[in-house]
This record gives sequence, structure tokens and C-alpha cells, in this order.
Amino acid sequence: MIERLAIIGVGLIGGSLARALRAAGEVGEIVGCGRSLGNLERAQALGVIDRFRQDPGEAVSGADMVFLAVPLGAMRGAMAALKGHLDPSAVITDGGSVKGSVVADAAATFGRIPPRLVPGHPIAGTECSGVEASFAELYESRRVILTPLPETDPDALGLVTRMWEACGAEVTSMSVGHHDEVLAATSHLPHMLAFGLVDALARMRENDEIFRYAAGGFRDFTRIASSNPVMWRDICIANREALSAMLARFGVEMTDLAESIRRADSEHLLEIFERAKAARDRYVDSAR
Amino acid sequence: MIERLAIIGVGLIGGSLARALRAAGEVGEIVGCGRSLGNLERAQALGVIDRFRQDPGEAVSGADMVFLAVPLGAMRGAMAALKGHLDPSAVITDGGSVKGSVVADAAATFGRIPPRLVPGHPIAGTECSGVEASFAELYESRRVILTPLPETDPDALGLVTRMWEACGAEVTSMSVGHHDEVLAATSHLPHMLAFGLVDALARMRENDEIFRYAAGGFRDFTRIASSNPVMWRDICIANREALSAMLARFGVEMTDLAESIRRADSEHLLEIFERAKAARDRYVDSAR
Repeated sequence: MIERLAIIGVGLIGGSLARALRAAGEVGEIVGCGRSLGNLERAQALGVIDRFRQDPGEAVSGADMVFLAVPLGAMRGAMAALKGHLDPSAVITDGGSVKGSVVADAAATFGRIPPRLVPGHPIAGTECSGVEASFAELYESRRVILTPLPETDPDALGLVTRMWEACGAEVTSMSVGHHDEVLAATSHLPHMLAFGLVDALARMRENDEIFRYAAGGFRDFTRIASSNPVMWRDICIANREALSAMLARFGVEMTDLAESIRRADSEHLLEIFERAKAARDRYVDSAR
Repeated sequence: MIERLAIIGVGLIGGSLARALRAAGEVGEIVGCGRSLGNLERAQALGVIDRFRQDPGEAVSGADMVFLAVPLGAMRGAMAALKGHLDPSAVITDGGSVKGSVVADAAATFGRIPPRLVPGHPIAGTECSGVEASFAELYESRRVILTPLPETDPDALGLVTRMWEACGAEVTSMSVGHHDEVLAATSHLPHMLAFGLVDALARMRENDEIFRYAAGGFRDFTRIASSNPVMWRDICIANREALSAMLARFGVEMTDLAESIRRADSEHLLEIFERAKAARDRYVDSAR
């Protein structure tokens, strides 16, 4: 049971955590914090938070759990603002999609890795953002990856694990570097392809007509290109090393595919498509 | 009203046309044709076709409308098999995803463009295939692109237009070359990216784990990688010129994006993502 939860950044991710913990009866008071007064007022009106403070230092005062749910580019600033205001026993965790940058921000801000910091990443979300899009079931049966460090206090790790399990999530842990590589492959690269494809088509002269003839599959394929541009800009920069490596790997694959098409290499094309279909069908079966 | 419809290739596309025309009361008899006896028997048992012939020449005998719904790589063989068996007034149309290759196949087979040939492409489908996946509503409110040639008999064009309109489709026409470029951009390229992404991940050593952490968006994004590999092999080869040009255009876009990530060009990344999101949101609004 969390006595007082401070949520820095009350959007889809932070708002859904608040709703889920409230629904589970696992939280006493929820204090919201953010730059937009209007958003905080809406969050309070929706019952997502009990009260709010615009200053992170005030918001975390007396909290036993602090959840950072701001874009990656705002993490360091948020940490600096709450530094010196945390209770000694307070646990800090976050929802950032890249863990290396969050750990670097913490080390730079606090001068060391705080033992009560548990970097985390709920693998959940939609292409919508904002507190209005939040819902209590967002994390049900979803994975949450925690990336504890050698310095991490096992008690803090246990508290964050229980918090996510109370939301219905399945909690696993891995190293910071491995997390950032896995996410570059399964999330960051696909988003780059969707953004890149839609942008390439949008820049074609006849783009109105192009989009008019896009069939049903196109809508699903490009859904993630409707995601928040600022969030994705931050993810790209925060994870640029692992993402660059995945882009290069994908580039090699596409050069091979394009070359096979150019020379009408029927056999090699079929091999690629069959291997991809088998992997995709296996993935869907195992995800059921 | 079509008196006798011959469908060469009774799968998702051919089967759905049969079901839709039957539901609309716009067809007398439906004769199926294909290589697999089992599939034809299933199609008959499902009531999709009235009877079948395995020989295309016999299947088209006495038909006033012939629909070719075989993979692009089998078009020329199917045309050769029915040549000399068509009624002089019979209209031929097809459902191929590439029109240049179908026209070339017809010219090579018949020694000229048959005036009663109306090349066509229903922009509809799912990642499933086979007659069991067919349904009468597949073409409702979907676009069908016809690509008539200077040689095309206006009466034949009118009959094919009415056939698709009876299925609830919106019929438009454009040139063969323009069709193949538009489809390369909106359908063939996205399929290459989905196949390429899933294959690139499947080939990574830790691919089981990679797929385990793929979130919800990944499933939608890669759905089209579950499409029929033979069909897509044929599409790539049939449309290799336009598809190669689109792959090159996409490659330029991705090189720019990768370069911006490498040098952490915050402003340029945001510009790309915002333009893509705006185009995608506009497309979804207009597709409603």
C-alpha cells in the first residue's frame, strides 16, 4: 500500500497508473504535478489525482512513492527540481522508454545513483496522449521491465514490483543496456519506419491522391505514426546509439530485399517473405 | 445481370466477388476454376460457386464474364489456357495488384490487347487467403481501380463497372502506369517494410526475447507481414520498376532520419515526426 504517490507528469502513462492503483485500493493520496495548470485541473476533475502542485519539490514532499512520467527530455529537469525535497525513505521510479538516459540523468543530478531509484518501463501505451486518454486497465497483462542497478536497494525494487503487479502487470527485470537494445528493435525502429513512410508519402507531389488509395492495411501499419512527436524526438535522442545500430541492421535487410526485387530473384524473395510470415504468425500465437 | 460468371482462382478475392454478386442477385450461374480439386469442392460446398471445372478452357465456355483471380505469376498461364475458348462477347477482367504485368501478359498471349479485356484491381483484402476467408461484404465501400486501355471496348468497361458497383464498391479509373505507381507507394512498399522488419528481427540471435517484448503497436504494424508470401513474391516481380523507385525514395528518407538521430538533430527530427503525424491524422479523418 502506497501512502502518498506523487506523479510528475499526469498524462496517459501517469494518469493510468493513478487510476489503476486507485481501482486496486493500493494508494492513499495521489498528488499530481506538471507544467500545465489546465491539465492538472482536468486530472483533478476526472478524479485521477486528489490534489496538485506545479512545483515538483512541493509535490514530492511527504510522498513515499514518486513516479516520473515526463518525456525523456524533461527527466533531468524534473529530477533537479525535486532534489532535496524527497523523504529519505521515498522510492523514485519512472516510465521512460529509454533507461540509459534516465540513469545518466539521475547520476548527473544526484551525483550518484540514488539507492531508492528503480528505473522502469511499462510496455504499454496507445497513440493517444494526455490524461483524458488514461484508463485503469492500460497495464493489465502488460509487461513492465525494471532495470535495477547494483546500487539499487532491494526493498525499493520490491515496492515498485508490487506497485506494478497491483495494476495487473507482469514485472520482469533486465540490464539497462539490454532493455535499450530490445526496445530499439521492437518499438523504436518500427516507429521510425512508420514516421518515415508516412513522411515520404506526404512529401510526394501527388500525396492527396496517394493517401486516397491507401487500403485498410495501411491504416494499421501507420497507426503508430500518429504518436506524440515530442515524445518520439526525445526517445530517438535518448536511445540514439542502440537505435542507430538497429536502423543500420534494417538498412542491410532492405538493401538485400531491394536488390532481390531489382534482379527479380524469385527464390530469395519467397524465402524472406516465408521466414517473416512464419515469425510473425509465431509471435501472434505466443502473444495470445 | 451476369448470366454466367467464370472465376479462375476461387480464393479470398474471387470467392468474395462470387458471394457479393450472389447476395446482390446480380449473377445467374457461377463456375469456379482452379488447380486444387479440394479447394473447388470446398467452394462448392460453401455455396460460393455452383459448379467447377479444373480446365480453364472448359470453365469459361459459355461465360459472359470471366474474372481472373490467380496470383500475378499465374496470369499468363491462365490466359493461355482459356485462349480460344472464350465466347466472342465475353468480358474478361482481373483482380491483380499490378496492372502493367497483366496487360503485358494479355498482349503476349493474345497477340494484341483484347478489346473485351478490362484490367482491374479491387483495393480490398485481408492478410488471410483462401475461399474460407471470403465474404460478401469485402468490397463494400472499397475502391476498385479499373485501368482501361485505348483498345478497351466502352461496353465491356461499363459491364465491369456495374459488376463492382453491385458489390458496393466505388469504381474509379486511371492509367496502368499511374495505378502501378500509386500502389507501389501505398501498398507494396508498406508490405516490404513489414516483411523486412519482421525478417530482420527474426534473424537476430535473441529473437525469441525480442518478440516477447514487442508491445501492442507492433502487432498492428506487422499484421501485413502475415500476408501470402507467393502472392507478394509475384507482386514484387511484376511491379519491380515502380517498387524499386519507391524503395529508393524511402531509403533517402531513412538515411536522412538516421543521420538526424546520429547527430541528435532535435529540430529536424521533430519536423519529420510532426509532418508525418499531421499527414497520418489527415488521412484517417478523410478515410472516415
